[in-house]
Amino acid sequence: MGKIERRRTPSVRVGAIQVGSDHPVVVQSMTNTDTADVEATVEQIRLLAEAGSELVRVTVNNEKAAAAVEEIVARLHDSGCEVPVIGDFHYNGHILLRGFPGCAHALAKYRINPGNVGVGRSHDDNFRQMIDVAIQHGKPVRIGVNGGSLDQALLAQMMDENARRADPLDAGEVLTNAIVASAIDSGGMAEEYGLPHERIILSAKVSDVQQLVRVYQKMSRECDYPLHLGLTEAGMGMKGTVSSTAALAILLERGIGDTIRVSLTPAPGGDRREEVRICLALLQSLGMRSFSPQVTACPGCGRTTSSFFQAMAEQIQDYIEQNMRRWRQEHPGVEMLKVAVMGCVVNGPGESKHSDIGISLPGSGEDPKAPVYVDGQLFRILKGPGIVRDFLTIMDEYVARRYGTGVTSS
Amino acid sequence: MGKIERRRTPSVRVGAIQVGSDHPVVVQSMTNTDTADVEATVEQIRLLAEAGSELVRVTVNNEKAAAAVEEIVARLHDSGCEVPVIGDFHYNGHILLRGFPGCAHALAKYRINPGNVGVGRSHDDNFRQMIDVAIQHGKPVRIGVNGGSLDQALLAQMMDENARRADPLDAGEVLTNAIVASAIDSGGMAEEYGLPHERIILSAKVSDVQQLVRVYQKMSRECDYPLHLGLTEAGMGMKGTVSSTAALAILLERGIGDTIRVSLTPAPGGDRREEVRICLALLQSLGMRSFSPQVTACPGCGRTTSSFFQAMAEQIQDYIEQNMRRWRQEHPGVEMLKVAVMGCVVNGPGESKHSDIGISLPGSGEDPKAPVYVDGQLFRILKGPGIVRDFLTIMDEYVARRYGTGVTSS
Repeated sequence: MGKIERRRTPSVRVGAIQVGSDHPVVVQSMTNTDTADVEATVEQIRLLAEAGSELVRVTVNNEKAAAAVEEIVARLHDSGCEVPVIGDFHYNGHILLRGFPGCAHALAKYRINPGNVGVGRSHDDNFRQMIDVAIQHGKPVRIGVNGGSLDQALLAQMMDENARRADPLDAGEVLTNAIVASAIDSGGMAEEYGLPHERIILSAKVSDVQQLVRVYQKMSRECDYPLHLGLTEAGMGMKGTVSSTAALAILLERGIGDTIRVSLTPAPGGDRREEVRICLALLQSLGMRSFSPQVTACPGCGRTTSSFFQAMAEQIQDYIEQNMRRWRQEHPGVEMLKVAVMGCVVNGPGESKHSDIGISLPGSGEDPKAPVYVDGQLFRILKGPGIVRDFLTIMDEYVARRYGTGVTSS
Repeated sequence: MGKIERRRTPSVRVGAIQVGSDHPVVVQSMTNTDTADVEATVEQIRLLAEAGSELVRVTVNNEKAAAAVEEIVARLHDSGCEVPVIGDFHYNGHILLRGFPGCAHALAKYRINPGNVGVGRSHDDNFRQMIDVAIQHGKPVRIGVNGGSLDQALLAQMMDENARRADPLDAGEVLTNAIVASAIDSGGMAEEYGLPHERIILSAKVSDVQQLVRVYQKMSRECDYPLHLGLTEAGMGMKGTVSSTAALAILLERGIGDTIRVSLTPAPGGDRREEVRICLALLQSLGMRSFSPQVTACPGCGRTTSSFFQAMAEQIQDYIEQNMRRWRQEHPGVEMLKVAVMGCVVNGPGESKHSDIGISLPGSGEDPKAPVYVDGQLFRILKGPGIVRDFLTIMDEYVARRYGTGVTSS
């Protein structure tokens, strides 16, 4: 009931990962290290992959970066990290991909921005050179249009055509149409040059949520390529999280999007993995994938004046995060676990019963007892200072019982 | 182009605030202080209101809380804070509302949970007593159903009826139907008891995003009451932000929802205003309301290895937040301002031109110059250590020029 129905697409293989409607929506991210700095880039790719990024993109912006890619991929492989690495090309991709065949071979996909591969005749030549390299190495490409770097010749041409119409569209609509046309026409051009249909992924990112929804809805109707989804330049912190989530949720819920990236500006010294964590939380909240046990916790109100339940919810969340890597290996399926931590009797027992394990803490003025529900049945009543420890023990036992014995088969 | 079309509803007046499709979507929040603690509650309501909460709800869970409400509202009024205060009632609302007429009078709306007003005959009696108080004081009510405290008698009855059907629905669908029926039937009952149609708001919160979407879609088709939207028990931190945003964005984008609340579990010692800030960011990202200038910033990549641009984006954001209260008074309309801070030449100039003011910082290896665009035109090229200060000066001048002289009319 209520499963999201995905828009039908072919499957595009990116390294060992498949992107398309027959496969789960793929999480990806991008490094912000200097690609020429092999050590720093390898380290960041590993961290992003460990956090759950199934594809990682690096900029390949100059010869030093292109020269580093082979070594980066080799070192990742040696360390047991097989995440496919994608190269992001702008302006000089045709030069770098032809000049550094080791780079072209090591990358699992090339991202090409049709808005900055050159102008006029050289646009088509440069674009073709990159497609030729992709064909030669058997690689897929993403045609990645961006509102901030839209093909200006195409836009001007479409604006002119629009001006000659009896009933011209408004400029915003022409812009949307141009963004979509740039992506789809480039896909068609790549196929004319010989790249198979099932080696092409499209994206067309803009920074406005409503415009993004319009662009992707139009694009999803006009082609069947898998779509890479993202709001570009989403901004910082909570604002970036909220606008990215809003945009992606609206589209994913309509079945649009086969791989996602959240483009968050990190605070100085911030953690790049945050963009990955948001993707995981989004896909899980939409019921599209499960990565980690869900902790449902009430917001608290004047009925829950002690902050005990906030601290408890946090401790449970931390405990799950600390144990997740081991649990995932020893107890496959544990990522489906649902835990509820509720602060008073209003919704506590009800919500706890809907979870696999739930605890309903006493609100202010209530009896100082915390009933624990397991699989919808009252399991035990906890009280006293050891409530958190006792609850974690019950959770441990439940995880071992339901998701396996705790002994890895080897 | 692209405006969200709201589902049509009547308008419900809550204090001086109107809720319904003829009015902007209203932001609300709830205190987590002990309502009986007048000082702490007044202080938190003021903070929430200042942060942008247009309605604030408090629990009225016992006699001490009910006795405090009049004083809370009076003190808010004396301090110049006119935010409507809503009372949240469970179990004993009929007793408190009748026993404390000063409380019933001071509150701008009563939230009634039809799942916990009693069982059988006493359910209807207790519910009627609260509706009678609302009629007597001329107040609106919210019928607030919650998945965790659903009317169990209604659910059992609907499950039994379903079991007798030739083609029974699955249990999840019956649950969804029961949640919606509890809200809509209670609205009908309130009208039978004499409460005008345009004094009723409905909500039906659950903690699962997909189920919430189904519940609200169904409810929006089956009645025209304004809807209060929220994902209940969303949880903590990023997970709570993402799941709430996903759920609310999907519904708001379809025109469903007239007032919203984000139910975030604060970290211990956390800031309750975060739930308000998420509401503002969400409505603004959907283009439904404007509260504060938007800063568009790229996520950075290997082209932007210096963290200078991250720091700059943060400084600009901070500067806007610090000045916003003054700006809002002196420069009405400033909340529509769009600022772009971009880290390299790929999308920098393009995105900057789409903003009111934008700066495109040099990426690694680019010329150390930062073009500033104003209203889509190149305005100045900044360089040297004073870039941030110079940009803030340009922004100040722009705000004063475009949104007024900087002199408040008095």
